[in-house]
Amino acid sequence: MVILFQSKTDDPQQWRRAFAGALPEAELRIGAEAVQDPAEVDYAVAWKPPKGLLKQYPNLKAILSLGAGVDHLASDPDLPTHVPVVRLVDPGLTWGMTEYVVWAVLGHHRRTREYRQQQAQHRWARLEVPLGPSRRVGVMGLGELGADAARALKAMRFDVAGWSNRRKQIDGVESFAGQAEFGRFLARSEILVNLLPLTQATTGILNRQTLGELPKGACLVNAARGGHLVEADLLELLGTGQLAEATLDVFREEPLPAGHPFWDHPRITVTPHEAAITPAETAAATIAENIRKMERGEAPSPMVDFSQGY
Amino acid sequence: MVILFQSKTDDPQQWRRAFAGALPEAELRIGAEAVQDPAEVDYAVAWKPPKGLLKQYPNLKAILSLGAGVDHLASDPDLPTHVPVVRLVDPGLTWGMTEYVVWAVLGHHRRTREYRQQQAQHRWARLEVPLGPSRRVGVMGLGELGADAARALKAMRFDVAGWSNRRKQIDGVESFAGQAEFGRFLARSEILVNLLPLTQATTGILNRQTLGELPKGACLVNAARGGHLVEADLLELLGTGQLAEATLDVFREEPLPAGHPFWDHPRITVTPHEAAITPAETAAATIAENIRKMERGEAPSPMVDFSQGY
Repeated sequence: MVILFQSKTDDPQQWRRAFAGALPEAELRIGAEAVQDPAEVDYAVAWKPPKGLLKQYPNLKAILSLGAGVDHLASDPDLPTHVPVVRLVDPGLTWGMTEYVVWAVLGHHRRTREYRQQQAQHRWARLEVPLGPSRRVGVMGLGELGADAARALKAMRFDVAGWSNRRKQIDGVESFAGQAEFGRFLARSEILVNLLPLTQATTGILNRQTLGELPKGACLVNAARGGHLVEADLLELLGTGQLAEATLDVFREEPLPAGHPFWDHPRITVTPHEAAITPAETAAATIAENIRKMERGEAPSPMVDFSQGY
Repeated sequence: MVILFQSKTDDPQQWRRAFAGALPEAELRIGAEAVQDPAEVDYAVAWKPPKGLLKQYPNLKAILSLGAGVDHLASDPDLPTHVPVVRLVDPGLTWGMTEYVVWAVLGHHRRTREYRQQQAQHRWARLEVPLGPSRRVGVMGLGELGADAARALKAMRFDVAGWSNRRKQIDGVESFAGQAEFGRFLARSEILVNLLPLTQATTGILNRQTLGELPKGACLVNAARGGHLVEADLLELLGTGQLAEATLDVFREEPLPAGHPFWDHPRITVTPHEAAITPAETAAATIAENIRKMERGEAPSPMVDFSQGY
């Protein structure tokens, strides 16, 4: 069995070792240039493959995403969709995302940016912070990642609500569903966390109008995709004080260009798309499990539903 | 009933409002100067009262601490100990401490200080971070605050151990007890969190020798008392790389003096004793409940055991 491993951002040696343990029967080809005969490729494990690449393998049985989102695949007009395209639902990925979200929300809640400024000024002064149970946090997207983050924020005693296409049942988390309830969800969210999949319907969903419906002085955490956010609108709303702060892990263009205004904005925290790095240790096993299922004739999971876009 | 409310750091108007709701039958005297006849004072609710002050009230029935620790009372050689001295175990105080500890530990774990430096340099580079379940966090002190923080860190999926005088049962948290097991606890703690009470036995417990037993490159979070830490030893160990970073909320001298080397240290985060601010909303009710118990002839709780020092 031959697997094409295609990613510019993941360490190939780490993955080679992880696959050697998880799926010893597979031969790994690191990058398209390592493939001699396109007919030999059985599976593609990919993050942001060049557009048109994956259609070149005539015997491909499935495409397995290296990230939780599949917008990096769905944006390829030549993507072979007669084979299963599989999202990655991996515990290590989920753990990392939840850590990032809880860290970012606690930071906004506890005014740590202001405390850091005070430290720089050698200034000793307590700032008012509301009790956790009276702080309203809203999570957009209640899939694997959003649901886990919402549960963790609830365990930290915040007043948590979620918004998703369909209503969800998560203990102690108020569920808002669909366009009809989006306004009420936004109006209550003092700290807004975005973990939606990027689809046609969600591109640009964080914009002047929607962010304008948050309570004045709200904070934004975007750990999903840069395409969700209209970047100029965020700068405008930080300028008017409608938004107080933002923590951003994802951007329209990545790496974030050196001259981008986000880098030096005093109320934006920039991290380099590291909230949920796919860990080879756990994810190679998750991917191997799906490949074994397909080899036995079973369906992998979760498969992408292209009518939904994720 | 007359209550003396003695604190230089808590907002008296907030507390006046909170006591008006929680214990409307009480007359509040804000500060010793508001007391006309020392014989009228029934209860003292105090944070860092001037030494010798509390012995001046002949009819005092109890002293109620405004903070979780009582070292600020125990250090008064003239403290009247023939009346109950009551620690504050308050949900709002516990919630705040746990938020601070989880925020600080996640920050060290996720290398957020380095990411902040990278942002300042417009540098886009992922840093290696271990999976949460393989990160070893150690909590010193498993009283109300330490136990709650340990549970929250465990819920965030860290590998958590605690150290205390007596062995404790906390789900999923390894318990080390007493001097005999201190070394093994230190040797495993990559991120060390101190939440011990300050007593004669724990003064200076964070020093060159004990911090030297942590794994190389460990991080320290001190949210208990400044007296636990030998400040010069911390600076030395940060210098040698034995310690990587520290987050400190408490200091030998508070406010931290303007010229203190901690303010500008690139690997120390300074916050102004704000990890667990006693919230009037919840704590006035907790204190009122103890006063009502005493008025009915019942014992308040928890009472300070001066043989232990807390």
